[in-house]
Amino acid sequence: MAENEQKVSLIPLGGLGEIGKNMMAIRYGNSILVIDCGLTFPEEEMLGVDAVIPDYSYLLEHRQMVKGIIVTHGHEDHIGALPYVLKDLNVPVYGTRLTLALLQAKLKEQGNLNGVKLQQVKPRDTLRIGPFKVEFIHVSHSIADTVALAIHTPVGTIVHTSDFKIDHTPIDGEVFDFYKFAQLGEEGVLVLLSDSTNVERPGFTMSERVVGETFDEVFRQARERIIVASFASNVHRLQQIISTAYKYNRKVAVVGRSMVNVVNIALELGYLDIPEDTLVDLSELAYLPKNRTVIISTGSQGEPMSALTRMARNDHRQIEIVPGDTVIISALPIPGNEKLVARTVDQLFKQGADVYHEAIDGVHVSGHASQEELKLVLSLVKPRFFVPVHGEYRMLIKHARLAEDLGIPPENIFVAENGQVLEFTRDRGAITGRVPAGRLLVDGLGVGDVGNIVLRDRKQLAQDGLLIVVVTLSKETGAVIAGPDIISRGFVYVREAEELLEEAKEKVRQTLEKCEERKVTDWATIKSNIRDNLSKFLYEKTRRRPMILPIIMEV
Amino acid sequence: MAENEQKVSLIPLGGLGEIGKNMMAIRYGNSILVIDCGLTFPEEEMLGVDAVIPDYSYLLEHRQMVKGIIVTHGHEDHIGALPYVLKDLNVPVYGTRLTLALLQAKLKEQGNLNGVKLQQVKPRDTLRIGPFKVEFIHVSHSIADTVALAIHTPVGTIVHTSDFKIDHTPIDGEVFDFYKFAQLGEEGVLVLLSDSTNVERPGFTMSERVVGETFDEVFRQARERIIVASFASNVHRLQQIISTAYKYNRKVAVVGRSMVNVVNIALELGYLDIPEDTLVDLSELAYLPKNRTVIISTGSQGEPMSALTRMARNDHRQIEIVPGDTVIISALPIPGNEKLVARTVDQLFKQGADVYHEAIDGVHVSGHASQEELKLVLSLVKPRFFVPVHGEYRMLIKHARLAEDLGIPPENIFVAENGQVLEFTRDRGAITGRVPAGRLLVDGLGVGDVGNIVLRDRKQLAQDGLLIVVVTLSKETGAVIAGPDIISRGFVYVREAEELLEEAKEKVRQTLEKCEERKVTDWATIKSNIRDNLSKFLYEKTRRRPMILPIIMEV
Repeated sequence: MAENEQKVSLIPLGGLGEIGKNMMAIRYGNSILVIDCGLTFPEEEMLGVDAVIPDYSYLLEHRQMVKGIIVTHGHEDHIGALPYVLKDLNVPVYGTRLTLALLQAKLKEQGNLNGVKLQQVKPRDTLRIGPFKVEFIHVSHSIADTVALAIHTPVGTIVHTSDFKIDHTPIDGEVFDFYKFAQLGEEGVLVLLSDSTNVERPGFTMSERVVGETFDEVFRQARERIIVASFASNVHRLQQIISTAYKYNRKVAVVGRSMVNVVNIALELGYLDIPEDTLVDLSELAYLPKNRTVIISTGSQGEPMSALTRMARNDHRQIEIVPGDTVIISALPIPGNEKLVARTVDQLFKQGADVYHEAIDGVHVSGHASQEELKLVLSLVKPRFFVPVHGEYRMLIKHARLAEDLGIPPENIFVAENGQVLEFTRDRGAITGRVPAGRLLVDGLGVGDVGNIVLRDRKQLAQDGLLIVVVTLSKETGAVIAGPDIISRGFVYVREAEELLEEAKEKVRQTLEKCEERKVTDWATIKSNIRDNLSKFLYEKTRRRPMILPIIMEV
Repeated sequence: MAENEQKVSLIPLGGLGEIGKNMMAIRYGNSILVIDCGLTFPEEEMLGVDAVIPDYSYLLEHRQMVKGIIVTHGHEDHIGALPYVLKDLNVPVYGTRLTLALLQAKLKEQGNLNGVKLQQVKPRDTLRIGPFKVEFIHVSHSIADTVALAIHTPVGTIVHTSDFKIDHTPIDGEVFDFYKFAQLGEEGVLVLLSDSTNVERPGFTMSERVVGETFDEVFRQARERIIVASFASNVHRLQQIISTAYKYNRKVAVVGRSMVNVVNIALELGYLDIPEDTLVDLSELAYLPKNRTVIISTGSQGEPMSALTRMARNDHRQIEIVPGDTVIISALPIPGNEKLVARTVDQLFKQGADVYHEAIDGVHVSGHASQEELKLVLSLVKPRFFVPVHGEYRMLIKHARLAEDLGIPPENIFVAENGQVLEFTRDRGAITGRVPAGRLLVDGLGVGDVGNIVLRDRKQLAQDGLLIVVVTLSKETGAVIAGPDIISRGFVYVREAEELLEEAKEKVRQTLEKCEERKVTDWATIKSNIRDNLSKFLYEKTRRRPMILPIIMEV
């Protein structure tokens, strides 16, 4: 690529080769614009980790260049890293009304609201941010107020779909902005970045309205109380529950902290249309006949501390599941949560409830575009270059193949990885470099202080527990003054293993004697001898490998 | 139930309210017959546990009564607990040829083959075991040689389907034994126990042959090497891979320990029909053009140490994935393994392979009966009483509803839990009691020595690691002679937290001083003071709660 040619770079910092922690930097000259700033939930092997956010050191290194961060909607995988990133990077954040309201609640909770500049936008707005002219475009998704972006740069226009689906019959009447996409396509688009989450699904994703039809059917037949669990942020879903409740003359109460928060925000901003007297307090619900009541609850993912999960295991302070209850889990398990959700469903059945769950029962539709919708967007936008985003590697590959089928030349399609730098001129594109990109683990208040060594230790401790060997040696002679003592945790049930632990102690004594005989006084050597001998002994006896920590005190 | 009436009891010891560790005891008078003796894999929260088996103390308590154990097929959830149970209970084991061969390999591996009495049976055999007359009946399943059972007792006939599906076009030509089921139904069946695993799926489960058609299509199009991962025990699947390879003039090599074992057993017993020169050693495969080769591999569940997973992360000694390779994962992820499998697929795509996986691509069919098959069996057998087995609680409930739809009176259907005793006379049934039933955790060589306390400790260690505080006190004065020292593992990255750990040490010093001032000499109190103060301090600073282990040495 010639040095003097104008170029724009795309630098994915998260969301490629994975579902979650979406973050894309766009750089033109010395200006950087960031799209989304999300988190992801820890993998099973990231023991004790609370959240994972993108490594944003590239932004810190170029902090003077960063003009702002645009958040396309209010889901955690798009706004969840902001409370951390904004601590280090004081730049304006742009988003629609509901998105910013959810972000604000989040920042407030974490106590770092001060000095954050939030700028509200709405669909069809156009904004100049540094050298970028940004248009916000309405799309359908499983949260209200989601926008796609058209970012006009001197080199050409970049269209980013964000997460989206095409819903011809949306609950709020706001259809996907076909005209804008078509107009951009007609004017010419340099690069399209498009959501790959559902690329493995053929056909079209069903309309949100389909869930409403299922609710109607289930509500009509339910004889007693109805409990619906869903994602708090899916305001349209909540609207459908409330509307159906009203139709069948039922009052609605809301339980679960995040659900209560979102309902309050959505009500305040006018995203929920609730007929008078329909929403009541949970305590009031108790005085109504069961067949006049609906409870909207958190817990659609089987989260251990959520309201529905507590009800299922008969551990909720106010609500007890009784035979006759109808429970609807209006969500699909996020990969990794399948067993938690299945357990909740099982426990609810055991309490006597009738449970509708998963797609089998038609109580959920996805918020992401299936193959035909993805094709439609490609055909509308007709980009010169295509970069699939928001998906695991196989999904990006499959999305790339889809684009190829529609006639985009393979050399104009880039399946990239987080951290790769994609440079585009008006007529060429290439992967030209790499910046630091990876993950930062958040554990409690710590960001990045839990790394591989800590995780490796946690894994070993989790597998077979630990054995601590303490011995006090004489500073002068090296002779054993006290101990050896053995303390174990998470290894064996101590009462049943007294003999084993006694033998282990004997092994340590023998090791110490041998060291003394051989005049070994170096602590490191003594410790490693203890560790090796004991480890071998325990493995033979139990086929387990607990962590062994020899501690030598000297007096 | 009148005392003098003849009765037979069913005592489920595993497999009800869960998928796995199947075990059902049938008792008549002072004779007990056991059906299956399986294991299950540990839940996520059972840290470090290798396997879970049924609590079989009921059988030990009545060891004189146990006449034998019948295993219906060779899957782990039907034979996996035998190596443990047979150590305590020396009774004959009955099973078909392949089932016993797989069991034998298992027992040999664990070194407890001596003195085990294995008795081979075949479909349509009838055997007298104590007061029970047992008929073995051929059914289709995802492993060859699976049998259902008709157990004739003086009270009536009990039919147990085992795991099954109805395959009209099975690979070995042996169709589900419709006649036997129909004949039993005609003669009259007291109780039917039927597989509930797939009760949530409408329609019929597809024939194994469908997978062969997919193989044919994929093999025909593949340009270079083909690698197929599947369950080792699915001999029919292996047969289809080999037959298709032969058709397309490819040689086959087998990798992965369990796959090599099963292929050898199946070959020896004649369950695999392999054309001459088709099966070659992996080392020979290297000399053939890639488009003449097929590799059959373990790893269809993304198991971290399996052959395919190693290939995917470029860590296999002999096989490197290269662009052009076609990989087929011919299995569905077992619940809980979804993410492991997805990761393997992603890594294979990254290495440049083309990957076919999951049911989307038609490369797998289930081995369990769907709703229409379950109805067919109920209609054939026409039992007086019905007990759904092999399923999570919601599945048992749904299976019960299915039976109700077919006209079995609700009071004759029993959705039972492990450990409940179901008693049947000729015309009445009831749940009349409870025996111990639960789970035994296997960790290394230990069975049952890992319980709640050990798991709770492992969980805490896994979450936030541990901090050991060591201090040496004077036996005479109680004064601090050495320490306090602090050692941490799995808590923070120590180099980045020196200051924090220094402050923590200071906290301990202050605590010890206060104890000395207040003349506290009781070790337990000193330790709990250290633990409380340190825990509070660390939570404030980090929002983490590591395990804190104060150790006091006295000299």
